[in-house]
Amino acid sequence: MLTDVEIAQSTEMEPIKKVAERLGLNEDDLELYGKYKAKISLDTISKVKDHENGKLILVTAINPTPAGEGKTTTMIGLSQALNKMGKKSVVAMREPSLGPCFGIKGGAAGGGYAQVVPMEDINLHFTGDIHAITTANNLIAAMLDNSIQQGNPLDIDTRQIVWKRCVDLNDRALRHIVVGLGGKANGVPREDGFDISVASEVMAILCLATSLTDLKQRAARMIVAYNHAGEPVTVDDIHATGAVTLLLKDAIKPNLVQTLDHTPVFVHGGPFANIAHGCNSVMATTLAMKLGDYAITEAGFGADLGAEKFLDIKCRQANLNPDAVVIVATIRALKMHGGLNKKELDHEDLEALSKGVENLKKHIENIQKYGLPSVVAINAFPTDTDAELQLLKKTCEEMGVDVAISQVWAKGADGGLELAEKLLDILDTKESHYHPIYDLDAPIDQKIETIVKEIYGGDGVIFTKKAKNKLKKLTAQGLGNLPVCIAKTQYSLSDDPTLLGRPSGFEVTVNDLIPNTGAGFIVAIAGSIMRMPGLPKVPAADKMDIDEDGKIVGLF
Amino acid sequence: MLTDVEIAQSTEMEPIKKVAERLGLNEDDLELYGKYKAKISLDTISKVKDHENGKLILVTAINPTPAGEGKTTTMIGLSQALNKMGKKSVVAMREPSLGPCFGIKGGAAGGGYAQVVPMEDINLHFTGDIHAITTANNLIAAMLDNSIQQGNPLDIDTRQIVWKRCVDLNDRALRHIVVGLGGKANGVPREDGFDISVASEVMAILCLATSLTDLKQRAARMIVAYNHAGEPVTVDDIHATGAVTLLLKDAIKPNLVQTLDHTPVFVHGGPFANIAHGCNSVMATTLAMKLGDYAITEAGFGADLGAEKFLDIKCRQANLNPDAVVIVATIRALKMHGGLNKKELDHEDLEALSKGVENLKKHIENIQKYGLPSVVAINAFPTDTDAELQLLKKTCEEMGVDVAISQVWAKGADGGLELAEKLLDILDTKESHYHPIYDLDAPIDQKIETIVKEIYGGDGVIFTKKAKNKLKKLTAQGLGNLPVCIAKTQYSLSDDPTLLGRPSGFEVTVNDLIPNTGAGFIVAIAGSIMRMPGLPKVPAADKMDIDEDGKIVGLF
Repeated sequence: MLTDVEIAQSTEMEPIKKVAERLGLNEDDLELYGKYKAKISLDTISKVKDHENGKLILVTAINPTPAGEGKTTTMIGLSQALNKMGKKSVVAMREPSLGPCFGIKGGAAGGGYAQVVPMEDINLHFTGDIHAITTANNLIAAMLDNSIQQGNPLDIDTRQIVWKRCVDLNDRALRHIVVGLGGKANGVPREDGFDISVASEVMAILCLATSLTDLKQRAARMIVAYNHAGEPVTVDDIHATGAVTLLLKDAIKPNLVQTLDHTPVFVHGGPFANIAHGCNSVMATTLAMKLGDYAITEAGFGADLGAEKFLDIKCRQANLNPDAVVIVATIRALKMHGGLNKKELDHEDLEALSKGVENLKKHIENIQKYGLPSVVAINAFPTDTDAELQLLKKTCEEMGVDVAISQVWAKGADGGLELAEKLLDILDTKESHYHPIYDLDAPIDQKIETIVKEIYGGDGVIFTKKAKNKLKKLTAQGLGNLPVCIAKTQYSLSDDPTLLGRPSGFEVTVNDLIPNTGAGFIVAIAGSIMRMPGLPKVPAADKMDIDEDGKIVGLF
Repeated sequence: MLTDVEIAQSTEMEPIKKVAERLGLNEDDLELYGKYKAKISLDTISKVKDHENGKLILVTAINPTPAGEGKTTTMIGLSQALNKMGKKSVVAMREPSLGPCFGIKGGAAGGGYAQVVPMEDINLHFTGDIHAITTANNLIAAMLDNSIQQGNPLDIDTRQIVWKRCVDLNDRALRHIVVGLGGKANGVPREDGFDISVASEVMAILCLATSLTDLKQRAARMIVAYNHAGEPVTVDDIHATGAVTLLLKDAIKPNLVQTLDHTPVFVHGGPFANIAHGCNSVMATTLAMKLGDYAITEAGFGADLGAEKFLDIKCRQANLNPDAVVIVATIRALKMHGGLNKKELDHEDLEALSKGVENLKKHIENIQKYGLPSVVAINAFPTDTDAELQLLKKTCEEMGVDVAISQVWAKGADGGLELAEKLLDILDTKESHYHPIYDLDAPIDQKIETIVKEIYGGDGVIFTKKAKNKLKKLTAQGLGNLPVCIAKTQYSLSDDPTLLGRPSGFEVTVNDLIPNTGAGFIVAIAGSIMRMPGLPKVPAADKMDIDEDGKIVGLF
């Protein structure tokens, strides 16, 4: 069995110019990064802005388990299949962070015969977008601390600095630090910490911006601290707006790469899906819709986090109208939702499956609540039995939802034909009546309650005292009409990672509310959220290597 | 008067493919980064490795003053002039750090009509080399702290960790920090700090490596900490060698750009010139010699730091044989060396000039000690008077050294013709008898003494008790035959930044000796050396901006 990197390296890529040609783009539309990667120029983006929109399809999933659900792989394979059928399909997906890549996960560009290439570049520095974000984030931090050091003209309260530095690595030792030690010349001592770069609000604004000017306006608004009077201090107040925008001038441009069978893929932006909205950039999604008849995109983690934020934040902010949703599930993961542990998955267990399938059913219901037609993609594994597949199919059919078996990991485009056909069928026959789940006009606490009750299936929300104070403060500041971005565990529909399947009778506790005024949402913290992962005992980096001939090992 | 960025933006660049063609390279030799930047593939580098070497010319300078000496600008203009004369000249120079760019300096890609373009890209993220270095450096740090967190199998003494994290920004608050706070899950508390990325040993090894394999071997050897028995712990011991090399797989490839008049320039690597050796990469310099008849390169700060390290470290390690040296001086800077302050430079002052010219004379003597012919380039300013120019010329002539007036800032190639002719003349008539100033076999303290006496003109060296202990320890570890890299102030030939001109009767104090086993030198710390600059009261970043049409302001 070949590894992902072996499959990827054994495939001959097409020059990206040729891939772009099939999208109607010529060399002048591209800024090449080597032969197989290109950024699309901002001129080209305005040139195509009046093109008719292709269909927009979201690929989402059940709540993730250690068994894996293969959402990204399914999305890539689906697009490969559509292209094989002669349809013009374009993927818009997130770019991976180096942290998980060197930590536990290895690469994140699909798998098997449904991959995006050059995977080693995409997984390493790619076109430098995340490095630009890291630098912009850290320039803000340096200018903030410098303003304090140089006399503190903005009267910043060093106990109320909310802007953290970041690195695009898993580095737990940086979570809680003290900076500014060593005497007068070396800054003002204060508590601080680093987040992983993809958790930076800079990543969120890059992904939500519709133009360089919009990006600049979002950057200007970001809150970095509070002064002693409790008033917010913004990026603009510390005069960092222009420099930050300048640092992001190339990062804002979508990146074009290809699948193993040379179909076009935009890989652009990758914010966290808990403390941020977890979707690739609006500019990449829009461009995929302008250049393709089918734009296939995804959102982070399960549908309760990713799809909810895609539908309530991204689509609403960017005026996107999704046409259909693919919900990815695996028999193995559903059996874990039904109570099995990872070692028990190789044997048929219809009882566990029928318990676990409740997780899928809830997500299907949720997508219906947004007025969207959906199809379930069963990402097939060799251990799946016929009886298990039949049970799962039957469940979906009983709910009136189409279902297809996807074998794109093993078979590439061919393994996605069934799914592609089902998708085309529902696009033909079922209409989208997409609408967000809550109104922006509703008070912040009501918006959160709506998500918890309607999407998570909980009984209600408990706001801690701190959260209640923040509710008042944010509303008084005129931020009450922003959408909410709930930061909670991805493993459960609830805020308790151990409650798998379809939990009920639970309440979600909101501990804090953080205004992300650049991104344009209020982050509601439900549970302890990790903004800086750590490395495992044996990091993935341990096994990585490259030889003089460029042969790479260990990058999954 | 146009600003540098206005001049740069008003010039039409040639596609880098065309620039490469004139070097005998075709599209397959290039990895394009947009239309105007390219990396040279490693295959191409091995393809040309048996080409005959062009002449190697080092551009160095007097000790820098706030008046500026224009070394980089002179180097670029000289190459422009040679090309205008029909000679095939290629520049190999350092890539700038974002820290100084956003801090005090603005851009660093030449000036006026002797610039390298696209200057806004070169000054921002360029091709991502420094970001790759930052990431590799910080992955090592994360893996080191992770090893301690996961049971500390290497018995690392947390009080003896010598590997710092880095950011490519000026951020004084990160100089002295405490990491690992917040309890058991968040690492082991210890003192730490960040350096600016260009001060990382990773930058030094990238610049000294001759191949990917050499880079990997250097990475493996780097010392990150000591265990409780006092033995060194290396990058290889923490299993980071392969991942670090993988992160640097593209950064190792030289970057090709162009001057304003489309002559080729390699911009690659940029280590600090005090705690490191201050030269662009060996691979870029070698490539410039393989592809050009004249390879023009520079080294950081004045000749006491930059040229010394170029000649004693870089050329020796890489088997390079320089043919001639250009020493850049300005009347204004020499008058500061003669005792004037920056506000007094606009008026003729022959007395100050004849005092200050002693600084230049010492550097001329030094270059002669290395067996190298030299030419002095007077970087002309409108405030220079005829009498001043005559005095300076006469001094050089008395020393038997050619001298030329350079006006490349104002006139580009035309302003460099006189210098180019003088250079060609000495290349024709004077032979290089290049040899390093000290033998590697000499004991470490003797090597330092030789540099201090022969190059700085001091009376001797004082080793502190700490330095004496290190001398013994490093010699016992078998590192006694490495070259030394002296970290001292750039402003003076001595270790006292206030001693301008040609100080004498001084001793240099060495406080510490640090083995950079990857780079292959021993850093001797003479004075307080800044590895992390701070931002000024009004950082350059304050005035930077970009509009929707991509027009950039504030990037000098």
